[in-house]
Amino acid sequence: MIRGIHHIAIVVSDLEAAMKTYETLLGVKPERVAEVPEQEIKMACFALPGGRIELLEPTTPDSGVNKYLQKRGEGIHHVCFESDDVDADARELIEKGFVPTTPSPQDGPEGRIIFLHPKSTHGVLIELLQEVDE
Amino acid sequence: MIRGIHHIAIVVSDLEAAMKTYETLLGVKPERVAEVPEQEIKMACFALPGGRIELLEPTTPDSGVNKYLQKRGEGIHHVCFESDDVDADARELIEKGFVPTTPSPQDGPEGRIIFLHPKSTHGVLIELLQEVDE
Repeated sequence: MIRGIHHIAIVVSDLEAAMKTYETLLGVKPERVAEVPEQEIKMACFALPGGRIELLEPTTPDSGVNKYLQKRGEGIHHVCFESDDVDADARELIEKGFVPTTPSPQDGPEGRIIFLHPKSTHGVLIELLQEVDE
Repeated sequence: MIRGIHHIAIVVSDLEAAMKTYETLLGVKPERVAEVPEQEIKMACFALPGGRIELLEPTTPDSGVNKYLQKRGEGIHHVCFESDDVDADARELIEKGFVPTTPSPQDGPEGRIIFLHPKSTHGVLIELLQEVDE
């Protein structure tokens, strides 16, 4: 079951500059700044009531995120919804016609995730995330 | 002060079709479906814990929303953050270099709003909304 917005991810070309902009806008400092080699990005996460804002800067030329940046420029990359059972949700949504970008959910640094292709969601790359129990 | 994500607005070419898609994805029916003549849109709003999802279909050819749809296709149109004092926030953010799309906040159907141009926010059209007290 989908619970609500977990985060909005914004791809940027200069993480330092974007961090300053969003720190000014949101009135909070990033909760976390990290390099995530397996996703080929550096990221900053702003915690807010509701959903978080994540800024992503690609660190390699050939990553999907960098290709998106080169093609479309800076802007929203994807929206992530929290799921309480991502394997069950993915199975059900794929059956109903949503198109995943991988055949099944994968384990990522924040939890278990799957992405739904924009062609099945009216133009929005959607991540479903089941956070790891701590 | 910015409190958190109020909604994500997605521009679509067929509201009925998109409502079915998002009803399936989110597992909830839209809380509200309405035509908003002053914004030249029909819209459906899905209430979720945290921020909402709003689907927008332009109803006139010359609206900003329709121009966006024609140029970029379906997808995220803007992100709205809740503000507890949009006039004060707007003044402060404009002073700090953010570029509004109108000189000052306006009264809209959901409350008092202002939009910040994507050129000052790393590619994201951002709405600030101060909801009307009920």
